[in-house]
Amino acid sequence: MIQSPSNIIAATTPYLAAGRRMRRTPFTSRVEALGCRVFSVYNHMLLPEVFRGDEADYHHLKTHVQVWDVGCERQVELIGRDAARLAQLMTCRDISKCRTGQCLYVPLVDEKGGMINDPILIRLAEDRFWLSIADSDVLLWAKGLAAGMKLDVTCAEPDVWPLAVQGPKAEDLCAKVLGEEVRAITFFHFAEIEWRGHRFIVARSGWSKQGGFEIYVNDWHLGGALWDELMRQGQAFNVGPGAPHNTERIEGGLLSYGNDFTNANNPFEIGLEKYVHLDRPIEFLGRAALERINAKGIARRMMGLFIDAKALPACDSPWPVWAGSTKAGELTSCSISPMFGKGIGYAMLERGVWEEGTKLTLETPDGARHAATVTPLPFWRP
Amino acid sequence: MIQSPSNIIAATTPYLAAGRRMRRTPFTSRVEALGCRVFSVYNHMLLPEVFRGDEADYHHLKTHVQVWDVGCERQVELIGRDAARLAQLMTCRDISKCRTGQCLYVPLVDEKGGMINDPILIRLAEDRFWLSIADSDVLLWAKGLAAGMKLDVTCAEPDVWPLAVQGPKAEDLCAKVLGEEVRAITFFHFAEIEWRGHRFIVARSGWSKQGGFEIYVNDWHLGGALWDELMRQGQAFNVGPGAPHNTERIEGGLLSYGNDFTNANNPFEIGLEKYVHLDRPIEFLGRAALERINAKGIARRMMGLFIDAKALPACDSPWPVWAGSTKAGELTSCSISPMFGKGIGYAMLERGVWEEGTKLTLETPDGARHAATVTPLPFWRP
Repeated sequence: MIQSPSNIIAATTPYLAAGRRMRRTPFTSRVEALGCRVFSVYNHMLLPEVFRGDEADYHHLKTHVQVWDVGCERQVELIGRDAARLAQLMTCRDISKCRTGQCLYVPLVDEKGGMINDPILIRLAEDRFWLSIADSDVLLWAKGLAAGMKLDVTCAEPDVWPLAVQGPKAEDLCAKVLGEEVRAITFFHFAEIEWRGHRFIVARSGWSKQGGFEIYVNDWHLGGALWDELMRQGQAFNVGPGAPHNTERIEGGLLSYGNDFTNANNPFEIGLEKYVHLDRPIEFLGRAALERINAKGIARRMMGLFIDAKALPACDSPWPVWAGSTKAGELTSCSISPMFGKGIGYAMLERGVWEEGTKLTLETPDGARHAATVTPLPFWRP
Repeated sequence: MIQSPSNIIAATTPYLAAGRRMRRTPFTSRVEALGCRVFSVYNHMLLPEVFRGDEADYHHLKTHVQVWDVGCERQVELIGRDAARLAQLMTCRDISKCRTGQCLYVPLVDEKGGMINDPILIRLAEDRFWLSIADSDVLLWAKGLAAGMKLDVTCAEPDVWPLAVQGPKAEDLCAKVLGEEVRAITFFHFAEIEWRGHRFIVARSGWSKQGGFEIYVNDWHLGGALWDELMRQGQAFNVGPGAPHNTERIEGGLLSYGNDFTNANNPFEIGLEKYVHLDRPIEFLGRAALERINAKGIARRMMGLFIDAKALPACDSPWPVWAGSTKAGELTSCSISPMFGKGIGYAMLERGVWEEGTKLTLETPDGARHAATVTPLPFWRP
């Protein structure tokens, strides 16, 4: 049993009320049994956040292997003659060369070029896709477009619950539990793997930079048994439960919808320009808007900040960043990085102050001011 | 300062992680200062849940007046030549007679007749509406339909933050703070009210059966000051902070999207047939589907249950309801009602066991079995 971490629970830490509206996943009972006490809500579903304490979770993830309950990464399934067309309409990235068996990171944009979500697109067949989504109701967006355009496509939420296995020993654990063939799965590709007579999609992917897999458990009732077997067979690898880790993902440059960007941002502002394929003959909803934005140039841009701080509160609102006495932008996420021995964070910065090396000041809600230096993203590349 | 309630915090109650993804409202700092420790997440935003303890909050709401931070009731604004057409396309309720100044409860349904949300429609002008939504991203649904159909309408989230004033003394408090003219606002109508030189929409509405108003604060930065003035001027009425109350709303028959129904339910199943206007010449998306369902009849129906219990856990998953040894359906919400001195709840019941007076058995996750009796909704009408 892992004890709830005293180092992240303050006297004022809020409790989470219970209700069906914040759905449990097939793995929730397992993480509760292991002592998880801290959750967030993601796609109307519980996301466990901390097991051993913030820093211990970080080192465990980077050293061993963790099993993550990311059942909240809901799947939006598109099936039908127009499935590929709808998928392309939603993203500025060219998906025409995405083959069955492949995964693509696809920024979704609306008609104004504003971000809707940044899911992984999984091509299951010529006419069948899953979008493995971040925290917004992409199903409603897809259904609205499909209904409005009378497309021949069914959009639905399938009985699929991702379980992530992440960390340097993830491949060994997955090979042991799911078979040696997982070793042949290359990055952002998937294979259908048999486990106890069931067949799961297993992709080499996951929201960390430590390597690993996402297992798309396609039956609610199998979730607990698979979790238990991963824990049992993983003893030799020092397996443990875990969760997407804020420090590790910031170090690696991973973005979080709702934290780092919202519908008010376009993909250029958040460093996703390489996925904006305006030079390809693809039809997508925000094309005209992104062409205008591209021609005009952006007025703000997300950059990294190194922050002179030994401790920082959790960023739960847009903290101001100053260039002298002028507002330079807003912090979107931050953490203290054991790798760098100081604070790191993302900030949406105004034109003129986003160049590498610019000296800024971060103001935290307690009134403290921290010197900060602009740096390109990611902070670290494996 | 209100103390966090020991009677709803168990040793295993989870904590809520912090992050910008779970947005604060303009009133969050106020409820924190008043000692609120229990929140849920609603429309990606913090919703305070408990102040004095569950039963003390209930009695206070029914006796005095509470101010509720319901900033999480996001507004979806529809503006443009096709705004009324889009609003009608989304709901099975005839909105053609809804005048400016009026509010309507509108079940939103998709092309299959499945519920998308159950917001309040607020007609601000001929070509301008707000949908004051429950917990799903209606903005994406509206934008998807509008983009797909190339409608002449802008769908956006305005800078508007509802603050509810609920309870028997709500009118006196609102009259004192906002002016005597609020007394003339009739149920489910609104007026534009001036406060300190700003003009707010104030509607006689709210998610309780105790009467009161919802103030649509149209500037983030005014929220705190209005909260403070309501608290200050409300001393004579024994004002206090509060929140939508699970027991009170179940007694009154109010439904909660995500708890009591989801996209898997149609409006007939959840007792909303009076808002399904198939006899009117209106064009809405789920019309053909609801006509088929109406002709065929439904296979399950939400009903009330009186439950023989002195205490019940919080319902956070679909608890089975049995008719003898046959599964009769699932509980969706429950509470112990001080008014009835026993458990009350909603259950989605199969055809054949939904008649009033049917004797059933509720099974809770701890393995306990409670005798239950089917009853029509609502349990209580003011």
